[in-house]
Parts: sequence; structure tokens; C-alpha cells
Amino acid sequence: MHAVAKHAGVSPMSVSNVINGRRVLPHTREAVLRAIADLDYKPNAAARALASASPVRIGLLYNSPESAFVSALLVGALDAATRFGAQLLIRRFEEHRTLSDILFDMVEGGANALILPAPYCEAASGTGLIERLNVPLIALCSGSELPDMSSVRVDDAAAARDMTNYLIGLGHRRIGFVRGAQNHIISRTRFEGYRLALLEHDLELDPDLVVDGDLTFDSGLGATEQLLSLRQPPTAIFASNDDMAAAIVSVAHRRDIRVPDQLSVAGFDDSPISRKIWPALTTVRQPIVDMTEIAVESLIEILGNPATKEPLATFTTYADYSLVIRGSTSAPGLC
Amino acid sequence: MHAVAKHAGVSPMSVSNVINGRRVLPHTREAVLRAIADLDYKPNAAARALASASPVRIGLLYNSPESAFVSALLVGALDAATRFGAQLLIRRFEEHRTLSDILFDMVEGGANALILPAPYCEAASGTGLIERLNVPLIALCSGSELPDMSSVRVDDAAAARDMTNYLIGLGHRRIGFVRGAQNHIISRTRFEGYRLALLEHDLELDPDLVVDGDLTFDSGLGATEQLLSLRQPPTAIFASNDDMAAAIVSVAHRRDIRVPDQLSVAGFDDSPISRKIWPALTTVRQPIVDMTEIAVESLIEILGNPATKEPLATFTTYADYSLVIRGSTSAPGLC
Repeated sequence: MHAVAKHAGVSPMSVSNVINGRRVLPHTREAVLRAIADLDYKPNAAARALASASPVRIGLLYNSPESAFVSALLVGALDAATRFGAQLLIRRFEEHRTLSDILFDMVEGGANALILPAPYCEAASGTGLIERLNVPLIALCSGSELPDMSSVRVDDAAAARDMTNYLIGLGHRRIGFVRGAQNHIISRTRFEGYRLALLEHDLELDPDLVVDGDLTFDSGLGATEQLLSLRQPPTAIFASNDDMAAAIVSVAHRRDIRVPDQLSVAGFDDSPISRKIWPALTTVRQPIVDMTEIAVESLIEILGNPATKEPLATFTTYADYSLVIRGSTSAPGLC
Repeated sequence: MHAVAKHAGVSPMSVSNVINGRRVLPHTREAVLRAIADLDYKPNAAARALASASPVRIGLLYNSPESAFVSALLVGALDAATRFGAQLLIRRFEEHRTLSDILFDMVEGGANALILPAPYCEAASGTGLIERLNVPLIALCSGSELPDMSSVRVDDAAAARDMTNYLIGLGHRRIGFVRGAQNHIISRTRFEGYRLALLEHDLELDPDLVVDGDLTFDSGLGATEQLLSLRQPPTAIFASNDDMAAAIVSVAHRRDIRVPDQLSVAGFDDSPISRKIWPALTTVRQPIVDMTEIAVESLIEILGNPATKEPLATFTTYADYSLVIRGSTSAPGLC
């Protein structure tokens, strides 16, 4: 079809339109019919279907659409797919179905590769599901290395340690920490970074200063109320993601607590929300767009390599994180 | 393949795995092979390819991934696609290419229907492009009715008039307005609603109170600086979308202007950002998820109707908007 299009000086779509009897301009139809005759082209439905079925189709499972991380992830995946000419089949996780059913549906629906963000990659790890799916799969932003899955991630523990060290360096001694959802490995590894930084500076880990959230904005509201109601409230709070950090800033405004003079706030991800609140958030930048691009590119390479009958060796690719310092953090005030 | 799967009591994917020599559990392979023999099934590559090519594949073009409206749109489209079992081919607009080239690419890449959000539907209207593409297409959130395209939208002018009336009802007399990008029809129709409300209340339209933004957060920062630098600044500002309204709140915080006591702020869209800033935004709720669902459902119906050789009549579906009153608006202060 592309040869006919080139010969006729029209788009392959016009060729398809003529072949399928759809409306086109008279001179386009003439040019296509002449090219079909010149090249002795025999339209073949099967070949056309196979050609349109051949592109790389990457399935991506997501959830929590209100989450700023998820919008960043979607945008990153869409960008990378556009750049590499891959198709994305994006599916939202449905609570009433099993992960296994959803992933099999995606593969049966045409996905020939999968990107599985946390926490789904973590849930699938160790279950044998990946082997049964039998398509190349890359885990994205898993909270730790996964023994049976290739992944693209940042070193969450090191990043959280760096951010905590930064807050300690500003002079904070009572630093609150809002953990992530329990089904996310980051709830463990980011907390571990916080714990290590305190340890390195001989600061006591006060269990009252560590509260659980579930990565949603709303859970951040409750966690903040809990921390600010302590008899000795923290002078800084580090949340496991930006949505919860935005909630901390919101509660501070409501209680007339000045950020950062009276309370420093730090997040994690550098998702768009971090710039749109005031003061803008100090946060750990995870380069989600780049990371998704690496995942997409890896999958295209794997699919393009015919020698992949054997199970692939798993590899973990580390993306560089960085601390982004904005207006939400400063030295503790003297109040 | 589905008959074989049913007969064998396994998933169609397992049948595909056996046929294609991929690894499956021994008893799965046995069951599939027995079913293939029982049913005298002849794997046919073409039929398989056609089957996988047959699903509804809706192309969706978007841009400005940092925009809260766009993330809401993506999430809505993904939700609706999941619910209806349609596939989405999502493509980001690339500045260096023409709209025509991108849309033809999407159709050639397998999209058999298109959803075109503003401003792309508006740019395509009247150019004949839609007819040449020759796939069912629905415009989403166009700023007005489009003569040559079916669309799903809210009545932007009526909504903006209602919001302006609400602000007037609170007692505001100097109400600033931040317009959208010039290539969006909403820049005209939402402004028209603002103008009409002032007219109905015999309030003068002060041209100094109307500034141009481009719907981005950053453009909202500049627009706000301009309005707040007036000798007689407004007591309320109504922005054409939530991202720009969030920027107004941000500038107010920075200048130590209390929202809403000293400045009321209203947005448009009710995108997730409107809840995550403090104070939360009073805004016009556009039910993007429902609207995208209507667009997806309409396209599936059109595709499922074989009697669509004739050009379809265009129709405009109006979704109900509503005013969402949150903390960013109040009666003007006495300062």
C-alpha cells in the first residue's frame, strides 16, 4: 500500500480509501487507480490487517487518576510512544477484577509488551504471572529491585535520605514523615532513607513523627492534622509524594501556619502540582518522562530482537533523581 | 479461537500461546490441543490478525500535558474506553507538524474513529479535513457549536455568565477577567458570558480589567500581576480555567493578599488542581469524564451502524455544567 501511495503521490490513507470505496477527491481516485494498475497491486485484506496489527503496542496499567504522579506517568508514556511510533493501550485498574485477569485482557486485546507501574509490578512479582503472560514487561518506579522483573526506577532510599539530610542541614531536628500506602514498597524504602539520615546525624527516630498516608491528597490532610496536633509538633514534614505534601501546605494555610517560616514541607516526584501551589514545593525530582521513555525504548528493542525465545535476563535501570529546592523549605523559625 | 478456549476451559490467550509455541503449563497445552482436535480448528493467521484489528480504536489528540484540563480529559477518555471495551490511540500534538498530517497518521495507524478536543476541533472546522479523513469524529469541549462537526460541550457563555452573576451577587463590582488563548473559541464565548452578566447588572466593562492569558499556569501569573498593579485593582478575578485561577491564588499568597477576604478567585473546569490548592477554588464544573464517555459511546454506536455510508448529520450534545462554590470566593472585604 505504501508503494502505491508513493507512486500515486498520495497518502497511504488515500489508497486505503479508494480500495475500501470511501469518498476521495476525483483526481486522488484517478491517481490511485492508475498506480494500482501500474504496479499490479492486489489489495489483500489479510496483509492489510497484519500490517495494521504489527506495530508495537504497549499496554500500560494505571490507577488513581487524581494522583499527580499518575498524570505525569501518562503524559510521559504518551510522549515516549509518540516519539518512538509505538502505540499505547492504556487500561485503568478495576478494583473488582484481579490483576491477572486485567493483564491477560490487555495482552489478548493486542498488547505485545507491558509497562507495569508500582504497585502493580510489586504485586505481580514472585507470583509467576509474568511468565504466564509471556510478553516483554518492564516495571516502572518499583520501590525496590524486583528479582523476576526488569525495572526502571530511582534509588528511593538514597533520594529520601538526601532530602532528609537537606532538611537536617537547614537546622531541623524534629522532622515528620508521611509514609505511602502499605501496598507500595516505597512506603518501606523511602522511610528507610529517612531513618538512615536521622541515624547518621544521631537524631532520635520519634515514632510519633511517622504517620501513614496512602499517597492521596486526602490522606495527607489527615496525616498533617495528626502531626500538627502533637504536643511537640515537627518543624518540617517530608511526605512520600507531592500530593500529600500539597495537603500539608493546604492544612498549614488553613491553620494560619506560615510555610516555610513556621513549617517546612518537602515532597517526592516533582509532579506538576508541585509548582502550582504556593509556596511551590521542595521535592525529589523523579524524571518520570525520561524513565517511561527508557521503558518504552527497551520494550521496542526487545520486541525487535528475534532471539528472544529464551526468558530474558532481568535488569534494573537507575534514573538519576535530584533535589529541587523551592519555596516550601527554609531554616526553622524561632517561634 | 474463542470457541477453542471455551471448549478447553482456558483463556483465548492460552490458545494463542499454544498455537504460537509459547510456554504454557503442560495440562493447559494438553487441553488446548485436545480442543483443537475435537473442533477441527485450523489456526488461520489472517483471521487472527483481522480479529485483533477489529476492535473500536478511538484516536485522541491532546497537547499541553501540564494542563489540569488535559489530565482530566485523558483520565476521562481512559475510563470510558475501559468501560466500553474500546481501545484508545492517544497522540500528543507535535508543534512542527500540521494537524492534517497528524490526524491522517492516527487513522493510518489504526484509529477508526476520532475524538478531537478544543482547540483542534475548532482549527479543523471549515477546512474540509474531516471529510477527507472519513472516519466518525466528535469534537470535545469546543467553545461554540461547530457547523460541520458533532460535538459534546457545555454552554460556555451561559456558564461564564452564571459565575459572573454569582460574583456580582456576592457584592463584587470590579471583577477582573483572564481570557484564554486566542486560538481557543472559549476565549470569545466565556468572555461573552462575563460581558453579558455585567451588562445585565448595569456594570461598566472596564477594559483594564480584562487581560489575556493562554490557559497555562505561567500565563496566569503574568495576568494577575497586571490586574493587581492597577490603580484600582479588582476585588474578584474570574479566570477562564483552573490553572490560571491557581496562579492568581499563588500570586496573592506571594503578595500577602488574603484570598478570599481581600481577593475572590474563580476558575473554570473543576479539574483536580482546584481541590489541591488552598483555599480550594470556586469554579465551573465541566463534567469532562461524562462528556468523554458520551463521545466514546457515540462513536461506538456510529461504528456499529452499517448504514453510515452517507455523511452523518452533525449534532451538538450539551452536558450540564454547575457552579462549585469553595473557599476562594466571598463577599468583598472592607479594605
